[in-house]
Amino acid sequence: MEIDPMMIVFAIGIFSIIVAVYFARDVLRRDKGSKDMQKIAKAIQEGSNAFLKRQYKTIAILTVVFAALISGVYLFVGKPETAFNTGVSFIFGAFCSALAGIIGMTIAVRANLRTAATVSKSPGEAVKVAMRGGAVSGLIIVAMSLLGVALIYYGLGADPQQTPFMIVGYGFGASFVALFAQLGGGIYTKAADVGADLVGKVEKGIPEDDPRNPAVVADLVGDNVGDCAGRGADLFESTAAENIGAMILGVALFPYFGVNGILFPLVARAFGLIASIAGIFMVRPKDTDDPMKALNRGYYVAFGLSAAFFYFVTMWMLNNVWFFYAGLTGMVMSLVFIYITQYYTEHKYRPVKMIVESSVTGPATNIITGFAVALECTALPIITIAASLILSFTFGVLSGVPNGGLYGTAIATMGMLATCAYVLSMDTFGPIADNAGGIVEMSKAPEEVRKKMDRLDAVGNTTKALTKGYAIGSAALAAFLLFSAYMGDISMLTGKPFTVVNIANVTVFSGAALGAMLIFLFSSLAINAVGKTAQKIIEEVRRQFQDKRLMAGKIDPDYAKCVDITTKGALRNMVLPGIVAIAFPVAVGAILKYEAMAAFLMVGTIAGILMALVMNNGGGAWDNAKKYIELGNKGGKGSDAHKAAVVGDTVGDPFKDTAGPSLHVLIKLLATITLVLAPLFI
Amino acid sequence: MEIDPMMIVFAIGIFSIIVAVYFARDVLRRDKGSKDMQKIAKAIQEGSNAFLKRQYKTIAILTVVFAALISGVYLFVGKPETAFNTGVSFIFGAFCSALAGIIGMTIAVRANLRTAATVSKSPGEAVKVAMRGGAVSGLIIVAMSLLGVALIYYGLGADPQQTPFMIVGYGFGASFVALFAQLGGGIYTKAADVGADLVGKVEKGIPEDDPRNPAVVADLVGDNVGDCAGRGADLFESTAAENIGAMILGVALFPYFGVNGILFPLVARAFGLIASIAGIFMVRPKDTDDPMKALNRGYYVAFGLSAAFFYFVTMWMLNNVWFFYAGLTGMVMSLVFIYITQYYTEHKYRPVKMIVESSVTGPATNIITGFAVALECTALPIITIAASLILSFTFGVLSGVPNGGLYGTAIATMGMLATCAYVLSMDTFGPIADNAGGIVEMSKAPEEVRKKMDRLDAVGNTTKALTKGYAIGSAALAAFLLFSAYMGDISMLTGKPFTVVNIANVTVFSGAALGAMLIFLFSSLAINAVGKTAQKIIEEVRRQFQDKRLMAGKIDPDYAKCVDITTKGALRNMVLPGIVAIAFPVAVGAILKYEAMAAFLMVGTIAGILMALVMNNGGGAWDNAKKYIELGNKGGKGSDAHKAAVVGDTVGDPFKDTAGPSLHVLIKLLATITLVLAPLFI
Repeated sequence: MEIDPMMIVFAIGIFSIIVAVYFARDVLRRDKGSKDMQKIAKAIQEGSNAFLKRQYKTIAILTVVFAALISGVYLFVGKPETAFNTGVSFIFGAFCSALAGIIGMTIAVRANLRTAATVSKSPGEAVKVAMRGGAVSGLIIVAMSLLGVALIYYGLGADPQQTPFMIVGYGFGASFVALFAQLGGGIYTKAADVGADLVGKVEKGIPEDDPRNPAVVADLVGDNVGDCAGRGADLFESTAAENIGAMILGVALFPYFGVNGILFPLVARAFGLIASIAGIFMVRPKDTDDPMKALNRGYYVAFGLSAAFFYFVTMWMLNNVWFFYAGLTGMVMSLVFIYITQYYTEHKYRPVKMIVESSVTGPATNIITGFAVALECTALPIITIAASLILSFTFGVLSGVPNGGLYGTAIATMGMLATCAYVLSMDTFGPIADNAGGIVEMSKAPEEVRKKMDRLDAVGNTTKALTKGYAIGSAALAAFLLFSAYMGDISMLTGKPFTVVNIANVTVFSGAALGAMLIFLFSSLAINAVGKTAQKIIEEVRRQFQDKRLMAGKIDPDYAKCVDITTKGALRNMVLPGIVAIAFPVAVGAILKYEAMAAFLMVGTIAGILMALVMNNGGGAWDNAKKYIELGNKGGKGSDAHKAAVVGDTVGDPFKDTAGPSLHVLIKLLATITLVLAPLFI
Repeated sequence: MEIDPMMIVFAIGIFSIIVAVYFARDVLRRDKGSKDMQKIAKAIQEGSNAFLKRQYKTIAILTVVFAALISGVYLFVGKPETAFNTGVSFIFGAFCSALAGIIGMTIAVRANLRTAATVSKSPGEAVKVAMRGGAVSGLIIVAMSLLGVALIYYGLGADPQQTPFMIVGYGFGASFVALFAQLGGGIYTKAADVGADLVGKVEKGIPEDDPRNPAVVADLVGDNVGDCAGRGADLFESTAAENIGAMILGVALFPYFGVNGILFPLVARAFGLIASIAGIFMVRPKDTDDPMKALNRGYYVAFGLSAAFFYFVTMWMLNNVWFFYAGLTGMVMSLVFIYITQYYTEHKYRPVKMIVESSVTGPATNIITGFAVALECTALPIITIAASLILSFTFGVLSGVPNGGLYGTAIATMGMLATCAYVLSMDTFGPIADNAGGIVEMSKAPEEVRKKMDRLDAVGNTTKALTKGYAIGSAALAAFLLFSAYMGDISMLTGKPFTVVNIANVTVFSGAALGAMLIFLFSSLAINAVGKTAQKIIEEVRRQFQDKRLMAGKIDPDYAKCVDITTKGALRNMVLPGIVAIAFPVAVGAILKYEAMAAFLMVGTIAGILMALVMNNGGGAWDNAKKYIELGNKGGKGSDAHKAAVVGDTVGDPFKDTAGPSLHVLIKLLATITLVLAPLFI
């Protein structure tokens, strides 16, 4: 066959962007609903834009400073060419990541209004609108990360054995932006949520999304900047880092596969995009269909097609069926992760039921049980990860290719991320539906419309929880791939093979302990940042409620003031955890050197996966325990059990929407930072 | 010098037991107070004895079963002699550990009454009684672990190069008993506490230790079986395991030091006992003295003397000053750990102040802030551990002795544990003072006596928190020593040097991830066990309160029934976490083999230290935030802030008194289990 694989990558990448544009136009041409709805949607849009603008300004400054630092390191070790290449690819990665986030959110904050306007006429059509709005994010993010890596690969010379090492800066740029986007967005969304709830629901006794609450618009903005822009940046960097890491591993197989081993990750990803697009087109439920079923159907189509394409690409480029099995292992793992997440966060199963039961005896037992559930939920995912790694490694060894084992784990990661664009679309569906719910509620739509909307909103919550499970699973697999890339990088720099990280060595063990500790410290800082920002919002909301006319509905609250305070607070408070996440590993690596740094990275990753599972699933379980009680169980809304469950839900908020997702990014950031700054650790 | 070091060990060991007997007689001859007091004390004694009797019956059965299993493993690999030796030393270790616990507690449940009776006449004298009561535990435990190791060493042949490997069963026997003693006691004490508080304080609004509360005696029994017997078993196995591990490392230095390198750990420990005894005799405060200052003075005396003795023993037996510096590193680390614990758990410092502030906005913010503090508090201890390990290793290397680095870390552990007997005495002071407080309260003593008692009780709480910091620090250092012993053991078994644990290998990495996961799972099971047991007590207390005469004070509650239910519940619910803690590592080791098992052990230890710090310090901070509010701050007792702080305190209870201390034991159990079952992992 005489087809250049890179041409396929470019073709599919551009095609995916065209599809995204088609979806965007399809969403935008739809009914925008009543004047009331439009007014609220406009406030959300303005708030989101204002936040993004300021956030990316801060991030841009940090990016330039950091680019200078990285280039300085390489100049310092006497590699001016690498200094230039890495600096440029860092900035390019950061730029692409930011751009993908901005485009995705621009559509999401318009799709919410269209979804709200459509739901009263046709709930099935509304699902389609929300899904296609999400697909704009999903496709743009995956396509841009793919095209970005391909472009920079060509831009830096396309030497199959050298260029992959030069483009690591691209992955780090993406991680860098993702860290701050997720932290800032995560702090924003939960500070606004906690602030709105504590004064509105608890002190004033008004319902969620009540238009009299001054923080309600900030809360809706938060859904976009946290869940949508944040997770978008997270998965942008996942796919970028994984592409680059796999290409570096491909270099080791160059004698065997030639350039095919290096380009395989990009081609596999490209076909995953096609499979995802097919899946998205399948989501067109009837008005009477269960929306979750429609989304699942699309997912299974994407999954099945991905598997088929994967087989085709593997046989074509690598001509070895064992690597297909390795990819399949990753795909199956992603399914298992989703099922485990369901088990731990849905009210039909034992864990959430236990939390519901314990809410009856008050908030203390609710928290104790929720925490026990959160700790327990780490067991099955870790066993799944261990089994997948060992299995895909074994398949790689069975392939008979020298060094095939590690490449097997890399291919498992590609398998897991094959349906990434679909999952990401489903994920962005969440905040769009959530926002649409808020718009319906605030525009005082009739009860019957609200009920239809609630159903969609609930599906959005489920998809958000599931994709968090998917994101952490992919972070875990990608991390192992990136360790290997780091070790390859060090081998190249020192000229000696670096294949052993001996944790029985005192310094290496210390590095490992410090890596795990960073995870705990970072989580603490992220949670505290929410608390600090929420405090400011609480004060402002209380201040506004001092005017009695507000509660009586005679004047409008000053939404913009709350949005402004949240924006400033989130941006100020994202800096400390962000700096610690970057400076601490650099300091440890510079002092304890590269072998200890490898242990830092690996054990930090293990701790990060565990902690992220605790945060995500614990938060999700608390949330759903509360929702289950609100359905009328154990006394329903207003009962003591409900009050206890609200405490649990509030505790879980910064866990699942700030600390947890930020940890996903941190895990990959640690990997890319060590890749880029490796010369410092020698 | 022609003195046989072992003679010194036996002489000091026996001398320490004589001193313990002297203290016991000194405590027992004192005033037993009023009839009312004696009646309550008798109920506590009976409850404690009943629990211990049943608990040790269960443990005895498990011990015999496990001894058979271990011997079976060795028979299976064709080593009948080792099968016999290991089985015997396992049972002997288990027996000594149990015996030490029983003796210590027998005195503690009598010292409480004497302390309560003395406090009205002379608070200074009461401090002395409680400290000497605690010293019986402290001295017996350390002396018995020392004599036990020395005896079994002689009993199995005293071959300096062979015997140390045979006595590993002793350490595992001690760990085995410690795990169940700490788990059972920890579940007992917190289930009773939560049960008594949730119905008594929250539902009925009666004060703590009110004699009308049916669960109040169970609560007081819990202080003894959890804090006293549990921690006693914990530190018994710490010292035993550390002695054995250091002796095994000494084998590697045999060509250089001869038998001195192997016996040094025992001699150093013996002199630590003398230093501790001197410190205990120094605790004789005047009635106007601050009791905490008196305890600190004694500690500094023990610390200073230990350091001097350590210098003397090092120069005599090893004749190398660098090893003294290594020992000093461990001593200083123990001090640093105590200061860090104070910072995170006392109300004068930022962390507890933050929790107090956040209690004003309700239980959710109290929990969020407390959790953030708990996560943060891991940072300084881990940096301290890393620095101590690297420093003591460096001193070992500087000694010029071949393989001296690892021996340096072993000696740091000995330094840290030098004052162990004193710290343990101070620790047992806690439950004795706590119990005395309960006896004073329940016997309706005059207000003035209660105030004097409260002061003593508060000091007891502080010492309990500090010794938990000490226990986790020593577990961390001892663990590294035990890794090395495990690797030495494997080298001996395979006949190939095993010096590299390559965590970059997929299987080894998986082992590491599974080790960290076990910590999370085990914590979950321990916390859940408390919840399940507490539920039974809550039901019983509510049932008894249905008789209105109880609340009116017209009839006595049925204390024995609550004690009985708690006993049964704690024993039933300790089995699952205990079995998981033992079976899971064995299964992983048997499947993934010895190198992965080493990573399991090491990364499990790191995760264990982090989680134990979170649990201990988080719980301690919540507790003290509540106490600070109860002093009249933020509205004092009964305010909303107080209610929120009570929720935090209740959440912290199973963290700091069940899961945290059980994790200390688990860390060392993992090490001793791998040592003993090493043949299974090859």
